[in-house]
Amino acid sequence: MDTIDTLISARWVVPVVPDGLTLADHSVAIHGRRIVDLLPTAEALRKYAAATHHELPGHALIPGLVNAHTHAAMSLLRGLADDLTLETWLREHIWPTEARWVSEAFVRDGTRLAIAEMLRGGTTCFNDMYFFPNVTARVAAGLGMRASIGMIVIDFPTAWADNADEYIARGLREVMDAHKGESLISTCFAPHAPYTISDAPLARIRTLADELERPVHIHLHETAAEVARHVEQHGCRPLARLDRLGLVGPNLLAVHMTQLDAEEIALLAARGASVAHCPQSNLKLASGFCEVARLREAGVNVALGTDGAASNNDLDMWDEMRTAALLAKGVAGRADALPAREALRMATLGGAQALGLGEEIGSIECGKAADLVAVDLVRIETQPVYDPNSQLVYAAGREAVTHVWVAGRPQLVDRELVQLDATEIMANAAAWRERIGVQIGEQIGAPAAPAD
Amino acid sequence: MDTIDTLISARWVVPVVPDGLTLADHSVAIHGRRIVDLLPTAEALRKYAAATHHELPGHALIPGLVNAHTHAAMSLLRGLADDLTLETWLREHIWPTEARWVSEAFVRDGTRLAIAEMLRGGTTCFNDMYFFPNVTARVAAGLGMRASIGMIVIDFPTAWADNADEYIARGLREVMDAHKGESLISTCFAPHAPYTISDAPLARIRTLADELERPVHIHLHETAAEVARHVEQHGCRPLARLDRLGLVGPNLLAVHMTQLDAEEIALLAARGASVAHCPQSNLKLASGFCEVARLREAGVNVALGTDGAASNNDLDMWDEMRTAALLAKGVAGRADALPAREALRMATLGGAQALGLGEEIGSIECGKAADLVAVDLVRIETQPVYDPNSQLVYAAGREAVTHVWVAGRPQLVDRELVQLDATEIMANAAAWRERIGVQIGEQIGAPAAPAD
Ligand SMILES: [Zn+2]
Ligand SMILES: [Zn+2]
Repeated sequence: MDTIDTLISARWVVPVVPDGLTLADHSVAIHGRRIVDLLPTAEALRKYAAATHHELPGHALIPGLVNAHTHAAMSLLRGLADDLTLETWLREHIWPTEARWVSEAFVRDGTRLAIAEMLRGGTTCFNDMYFFPNVTARVAAGLGMRASIGMIVIDFPTAWADNADEYIARGLREVMDAHKGESLISTCFAPHAPYTISDAPLARIRTLADELERPVHIHLHETAAEVARHVEQHGCRPLARLDRLGLVGPNLLAVHMTQLDAEEIALLAARGASVAHCPQSNLKLASGFCEVARLREAGVNVALGTDGAASNNDLDMWDEMRTAALLAKGVAGRADALPAREALRMATLGGAQALGLGEEIGSIECGKAADLVAVDLVRIETQPVYDPNSQLVYAAGREAVTHVWVAGRPQLVDRELVQLDATEIMANAAAWRERIGVQIGEQIGAPAAPAD
Repeated sequence: MDTIDTLISARWVVPVVPDGLTLADHSVAIHGRRIVDLLPTAEALRKYAAATHHELPGHALIPGLVNAHTHAAMSLLRGLADDLTLETWLREHIWPTEARWVSEAFVRDGTRLAIAEMLRGGTTCFNDMYFFPNVTARVAAGLGMRASIGMIVIDFPTAWADNADEYIARGLREVMDAHKGESLISTCFAPHAPYTISDAPLARIRTLADELERPVHIHLHETAAEVARHVEQHGCRPLARLDRLGLVGPNLLAVHMTQLDAEEIALLAARGASVAHCPQSNLKLASGFCEVARLREAGVNVALGTDGAASNNDLDMWDEMRTAALLAKGVAGRADALPAREALRMATLGGAQALGLGEEIGSIECGKAADLVAVDLVRIETQPVYDPNSQLVYAAGREAVTHVWVAGRPQLVDRELVQLDATEIMANAAAWRERIGVQIGEQIGAPAAPAD
């Protein structure tokens, strides 16, 4: 018998590759950080002697979920201001609060809260864009969480940097160079949006991204108003400007994309660019509808993201998968648009490929990193099971996640966080709420009048 | 001190009436089946000696959720067939399976599974439409679950009845008369849809509903195709036909309503009719978008429903509230459409009023039945708390529900079902899956090829 670190035997394994396959009574063998085998459990028990053996008789084992667009630290602003127009929300609430409060400590505590939430919900990798990305990277690395850290660039001064050149320089030095060689931390360029960055830094990012082979993670075509303003100011739509600057290629990860004409979809497909679809954020901010079914039909790789918790209001990829699968049908007017297995693929391999990590994570295949999630389907909410794929996307939720591994290391075991102290994290979050000092809706009123 | 049965002291009480009020550190006093007081906890501790005192220091206490449109027994068909066009789904999967399998035993086991799921998710009342409503009523009553039981009527023969007259007769005798005087079971007429019932039974239902003061619960304007076919066959849209038959009044609970022009909205408002909005079902079947914001602006009472678990695929009112609040913004193109507190109102008082139970349930008010739900907000996913209403709708989920009372009787305590045996219910569900005999996607395949 071969000696391995961990054997996970599950009722079902959904490897995502090949597309649509569901394996009954299979096991995944892990050694070190990697998946070394995927085989029927009966065979695995004869072949392997594992230091740890997890028997999960009612569970589906899936690849770890990849959240392709987050602003993790904004978890501390969850529910600060809702149900407002985008302008009011940004200008009167989010921006002033950020200007006053965002600091290394804010990013540290917010990122810890976000990682705890993500791990509890089966997310094993997140692609971030926020100030102090050096802190985000350090927190993620310290906790054994996989992350793609966006080196944010914006034309305006913040506590993190004063101008585009300084954003780029600090990003390269304190994020990319500082984490060189760490397998859990990858980096990307994260120019905020076409309306917040001028041509010169965008051109420089293009050169650097090509040289360093990094994804470029940017908010793009989020709303019709933004596109219209861009046409006024630049004489073209944002995607056309990025194309002129040479940024539309396999490195591009375009977030939102609610405004797309047929030519633009064809352009994205031809250039091998990826789209990060954030359906709940698009709905909550009334940004518009991303035509996911058309993108998929054209062959565009689509990833899935929650956006920040201030506009969602959670980092729940289950809810996001379900919303993506449901909304795609409503928008396309076809109940067969975006089937369950394709939503699951977007939330795993689609994200991995968009982040340049398609060879490393996103599916259960030998040689890939052991980023794995076990989901208990023997629950009232997911019984009976005709098709595990269907239960995963349409009926299961984050609460059914029982075990999470990142690079072979357990992060959640029987729903308990291994590396993080949930009580301390929640106390920190509550302390930030006190500091930020807004407490809405807590009126000590008179008891309600009798019903009749 | 006054002696009472139960005192519940919560960090927040969200009574729903008056609109938007959130009370900090308040208590609800229960005696017998009813709420007898709502007051600050400090005062409650001086005033009441309770046989049972629940201290919920991080929880929000809300009225029990009302699921305004279900086919409870269809839980046994959860995930049987997904991602298909409506026609294929109904004609090739749902109808043949129902014709073969629906029986008293099916409805009993399916309803038990549904009630277990609903109670675990904070739903304390459901409005059903299915065959063998006598069984649904009996199961609900036996478990202490509140239900509005639809006396289903359809022109076609099924195992439950052969023709419209027999449907009506069995409904009146075996549902309404059989449960007369039971406070937990109310009844309504449930003509299936304008395209499955002819004028004569609809006219008879109108007369009976007026006489007996019962709601009329009907699928209406679910899809554009259905409305177009109706125009061809009847020379008018379905709502106009119902109006001609005298059915558009305060008794009407119109389910779906994805196709509505301005005159129809005005008609519903003028007549005091209610709409049951089922956003996830509408998306999943690509039925269209119900314009909830316009209905609310016109003053139409809107309730919220999951529809059956075969087209959702769960009975989760949290997910439904969140989808309703998010989708309304996307459809209206306004991020301030349907704020959180209004989504919560739809899921509670809106449903109660639509079912003719507005004086009995739907809000936390003295004199109303003690249908209550405690939601723990001290969780990673819902921290920090700026506004409890926002956390309830946008961040919390069914898994945060810790306690549920129906008419003062505990049904869920620390997430454990009191009246139901979850293990037995899941075993029954699994047995039905074996019997129905469809097992999709379970391929014993070769292990996936290595990643590179
Ligand atoms: Zn964003
Ligand atoms: Zn229905």
